[in-house]
Amino acid sequence: MLLTLDTNFPIGIFDSGGGGLTVYRALHEHLPNERFIYLGDTARVPYGTKSLATVERYAFENARFLASHGIKLLVVACNTASALALPAIRSALKIDVVGVIGPGARAAAALSKGKRIGVVATESTVQSGAYTRAIKKADANATVIERACPLFVPLAEEGWADNEVARTIAESYLADLRSKTDTLVLGCTHYPILRDVIQQTIGEEVELIDSGEATAAEVKTLLKEKGLARLTPPTGALERQLCDDLDHFYVTDAADRFARVAERFLGSKPSRLEAVEVWGDDQLRC
Amino acid sequence: MLLTLDTNFPIGIFDSGGGGLTVYRALHEHLPNERFIYLGDTARVPYGTKSLATVERYAFENARFLASHGIKLLVVACNTASALALPAIRSALKIDVVGVIGPGARAAAALSKGKRIGVVATESTVQSGAYTRAIKKADANATVIERACPLFVPLAEEGWADNEVARTIAESYLADLRSKTDTLVLGCTHYPILRDVIQQTIGEEVELIDSGEATAAEVKTLLKEKGLARLTPPTGALERQLCDDLDHFYVTDAADRFARVAERFLGSKPSRLEAVEVWGDDQLRC
Repeated sequence: MLLTLDTNFPIGIFDSGGGGLTVYRALHEHLPNERFIYLGDTARVPYGTKSLATVERYAFENARFLASHGIKLLVVACNTASALALPAIRSALKIDVVGVIGPGARAAAALSKGKRIGVVATESTVQSGAYTRAIKKADANATVIERACPLFVPLAEEGWADNEVARTIAESYLADLRSKTDTLVLGCTHYPILRDVIQQTIGEEVELIDSGEATAAEVKTLLKEKGLARLTPPTGALERQLCDDLDHFYVTDAADRFARVAERFLGSKPSRLEAVEVWGDDQLRC
Repeated sequence: MLLTLDTNFPIGIFDSGGGGLTVYRALHEHLPNERFIYLGDTARVPYGTKSLATVERYAFENARFLASHGIKLLVVACNTASALALPAIRSALKIDVVGVIGPGARAAAALSKGKRIGVVATESTVQSGAYTRAIKKADANATVIERACPLFVPLAEEGWADNEVARTIAESYLADLRSKTDTLVLGCTHYPILRDVIQQTIGEEVELIDSGEATAAEVKTLLKEKGLARLTPPTGALERQLCDDLDHFYVTDAADRFARVAERFLGSKPSRLEAVEVWGDDQLRC
């Protein structure tokens, strides 16, 4: 049976936890007429230190949960899942699946004048080499340096975006990239929270690329091309609000904590937030 | 059917990941004749930001996996699991279950002269209030200050135990505890890795309590009392080595990464290390 997609269907987004809310925010800004379903896999966060097989399994379960809710497109907001699990998800779903690595890589290749591109990301994303491959596919002449920055995620979650600890950690990770890059990709959904300290540390002359922003721009184009863009706001209201009750948020654990992270990242708590299980007897053997 | 315990059975230890290796090391030193089975739940690490229900479920699955291997005693090395899940585990197993909170709290109460005790731990451990309850049970006159230090775990895993980042983070968390405590409990298995920087920051006059050390001492006493202590080395060898092939290590994900953490924490990689699944169709609904 062919699935008939409707412009009224929401867009699905999943992330390992709350970091993908920065991607949700970018999508919301670029696509004010769309509704969103967001899933944060907070029972198993983070993905950045886990193996290919495990990240694939978790990503597959998340994708299946969202697909079962009737979505017209899936955004894999998590960089680690985008780096490791896109082929597995695409082979299982009948809808378009957009990761954050390709859009971020293409935006960096397009913007970089000297073709000296840095990427900061989690351990697993860096180990996968996915950003280097995607950037070189977009521009074979680019040189790429990837750097794992494991302390950036807990730093952003702690809310320490602009203190001495943040500056010291940023200096440790970025000092030697300063002279080697003209463009730096923020290759983890948490990192836009640390944008100011990263910019100050790497230097004002280095362009920062937010993969979430680049992804939102590509999703907008894709929906238009496919005739799946919603042309009017779902309620007829002139302006959609972040986290209003047209967007539905799910987490696999600790909804209270997620609501606090959302408030810190977006300025407001989700109106509709539910804890769910995405794994189950019939879902284990995927 | 009554389970007959044998002194030759190994001791089971589980942790959310590799941090519990500091507890394994302490047990190994206190009990050189014993064999150990260690399980690190690396597919779901960390526990410190997860909910009571989720930590209980994970801990229960880990405990059942180890119990099925025939152990004479279970050590819950993870502070968060000890704080949240001991009652659930004890009600399910027929063997003695020792957590790290009680021993750490009793050691602090016994050692503290001024009865001003600080505890550094994960967010969930602090929120549970388990250390405060256990310390006050040991000494009703003690005052207790608990402090969540979320960046200490990634700092220890990054191997940054003695650099400017470590000193800046320690200062942020501990500065105001300096004048308020005479004893500080390291209430997370990772923190002994940061012992030196914590001691320098809090001041040499403050006594540090390693809950893992305190636990190993109590386990030694308990095994003697129960007649379950092994009196000779299992192979007849005069000296057991850390991570030798008499101890068996299991992880739920990313064995390579665990081996690297073990090398950093213990000085050698485990001889016997296997990746396993502790969840399953029949184990999900506990």
